[in-house]
Amino acid sequence: GNPLFRDMPTTVFEVMSQLALKHKSINLGQGFPDDRGPPDVLQAAADALLNGYNQYPSMMGTPELRQAVANHAKRFYGLDVDWAREVLVTSGATEALGACLFGLIEPGDEVVLFEPMYDSYLPIIKQAGGIPKLVTLKAPDWSFTREDLERVFSPRTKALVINDPLNPVGKVYRRDELELIGEFLQRFDAYAICDEVYEHLVFDGAAHIPLMTLPGLRNRCLKVGSAGKTFSLTGWKVGYVTGAPELLQPVAKAHQFMTFTTAPNLQAGVAYGLGKDRAYFDNLASSMQAKRDRLAAGLHDVGLSVLHSGGSYFLLADISSVGFDGDDVSFCLHLTEAAGVTAIPVSAFFAETPVRNYIRFCFCKQDSLLDEAIGRLKRYF
Amino acid sequence: GNPLFRDMPTTVFEVMSQLALKHKSINLGQGFPDDRGPPDVLQAAADALLNGYNQYPSMMGTPELRQAVANHAKRFYGLDVDWAREVLVTSGATEALGACLFGLIEPGDEVVLFEPMYDSYLPIIKQAGGIPKLVTLKAPDWSFTREDLERVFSPRTKALVINDPLNPVGKVYRRDELELIGEFLQRFDAYAICDEVYEHLVFDGAAHIPLMTLPGLRNRCLKVGSAGKTFSLTGWKVGYVTGAPELLQPVAKAHQFMTFTTAPNLQAGVAYGLGKDRAYFDNLASSMQAKRDRLAAGLHDVGLSVLHSGGSYFLLADISSVGFDGDDVSFCLHLTEAAGVTAIPVSAFFAETPVRNYIRFCFCKQDSLLDEAIGRLKRYF
Ligand SMILES: CSCCC(=O)C(=O)O
Ligand SMILES: CSCCC(=O)C(=O)O
Repeated sequence: GNPLFRDMPTTVFEVMSQLALKHKSINLGQGFPDDRGPPDVLQAAADALLNGYNQYPSMMGTPELRQAVANHAKRFYGLDVDWAREVLVTSGATEALGACLFGLIEPGDEVVLFEPMYDSYLPIIKQAGGIPKLVTLKAPDWSFTREDLERVFSPRTKALVINDPLNPVGKVYRRDELELIGEFLQRFDAYAICDEVYEHLVFDGAAHIPLMTLPGLRNRCLKVGSAGKTFSLTGWKVGYVTGAPELLQPVAKAHQFMTFTTAPNLQAGVAYGLGKDRAYFDNLASSMQAKRDRLAAGLHDVGLSVLHSGGSYFLLADISSVGFDGDDVSFCLHLTEAAGVTAIPVSAFFAETPVRNYIRFCFCKQDSLLDEAIGRLKRYF
Repeated sequence: GNPLFRDMPTTVFEVMSQLALKHKSINLGQGFPDDRGPPDVLQAAADALLNGYNQYPSMMGTPELRQAVANHAKRFYGLDVDWAREVLVTSGATEALGACLFGLIEPGDEVVLFEPMYDSYLPIIKQAGGIPKLVTLKAPDWSFTREDLERVFSPRTKALVINDPLNPVGKVYRRDELELIGEFLQRFDAYAICDEVYEHLVFDGAAHIPLMTLPGLRNRCLKVGSAGKTFSLTGWKVGYVTGAPELLQPVAKAHQFMTFTTAPNLQAGVAYGLGKDRAYFDNLASSMQAKRDRLAAGLHDVGLSVLHSGGSYFLLADISSVGFDGDDVSFCLHLTEAAGVTAIPVSAFFAETPVRNYIRFCFCKQDSLLDEAIGRLKRYF
């Protein structure tokens, strides 16, 4: 086999989920909600499955879903999007990111990334022949400086990848940070691939700012969204990419040989869902914020110091506070076995300069499950 | 963008389907059935959607579907397959083929292919850095010789790709042909990626022979199947790869960053479907065979000479018999506009030595639609 893939570990999310199953541990590792998802969205998909079309839709996605994605961009961000030429539906955000990277990157191109980062970016960039250039965000507020960008941008920079809100740390990029990034994109004539799957999971009254909405960046950005995260249906694997036609065109070509298209009944469910009223989206964020607070308070009670999370499904706890003799990986293994609670070691999100004193907890769970996890941790500590 | 993707045409199936829509032409181009699919399979997927789990399943696929794929291999081919280590579920056969190629091929590896071939193989091989080595099958029976294989196999051969039954021509490989291929795989220590999505669409009482079942080849083959083709639900995009653990392992790693996983309710529907009784599979083949015969007779009546198709959704007509002044591409464009019937030019399936006198018709359609298409062709000719 290709050594890039042969020697690659199974994704940490799968490994920890399997371990949690084995030890009957409460799985606060892999990011997926445990509620059933919005019943009306499920029903829309079931109706389309039983009464609708189940053959190949257009490889760009169904017109209905592409229109819904464009309307959503207008309603939430004031973006004018031509649904017929600027929206591509994919089989999940993972495929969307892969298609964006394959579509844009040529061998030898440099790609700027921030670490911690999601674990699919680097293997795809390497497979495409790209050269990663990393900025390591500084704990505990995950900041970066103009000098960091000066160091990694060059005339060979083809693209930057940004994940906002940022998994695993819950950073929500501030407007001035986005403006700084935009300045470098324009100066070096580079593009941005914007993984915004947690766009509706931003807390404390803050608003998500798509990089694409900043002056001069509309046609430099590919914005990736995810139905899984927006409708608490992570298994559906429906994603969407929005971007200027010239930028989207090679991405669609890569997509056509990755999956070609996505189940039309799931697309129908998502199209329905994106049209739901504002209250749905507001409730999603506020109920998740309450869960963040519930878990953060519980972890604090057991003596773990918790970092602020402004968005996503996740928050970090600092394990240096509890005097464990080992790194984040051994701590997570130990916690699964000894306490029956599973988290993700944050070092798994670093490629160059890992921090080893944080573990990631997922809070998108029933309150009763969060309470039970805290109860177990209390008994353990 | 990456020139490989930027300069790539949109797949001919999408182009012709869009053209058919525009001209209100009967679409016998892109291969998809126009019936609703088996109602019990639809219901199983709908039940799972409304009452089941809609979060990430295991990245290998649900245990239920992997077991069903293994049981299917035992029941139809006598293969013993360890479902836990030898089956991977993908978001369609296109993803399965991509993951197999990305997982196996390293830059510089040679890959043997037969043309005519499906249009996703070459771009993926090139993206993986592989070097294609083509055998051009000889019309009208699409044969090849030992000398053809001697010419393309070398110590640098990593893999061969075979599509059996073969889209677009409907060739079903004979056992002696498969044995010859197997001899070369063993001699050159190479692997086979077996695109067998039409395995249940083999006609005239012949049986599909998975290359994997030949002596010595069990652990050299990755067998790709497709729910879309086996249940007439091409939009579902559920595929599966079967192969030895060592061979499947890098493929699973490539898959984990292409889509990661596939909607669990669709997996549930397919798991149910693969367990259907023999009569279902027999009826699928015999009803499709009747459609092949219906369309072939009609095309013959209008003066087109038709090649034998032993399997798949497709048959070829020879346009040199009708005295059209142009190639297969211009003939298909003309037929769409002037006759209101859409076919696919077969030259689109060749990379090196195209034939230009065949067009491909898809016969997996309601009898009434096939008759209407023949009626239109009669009026036109
Ligand atoms: C594709 S499995 C990973 C889910 C996820 O986004 C996470 O847990 O970070
Ligand atoms: C993925 S669209 C192509 C469908 C098909 O297999 C064909 O028409 O050959």
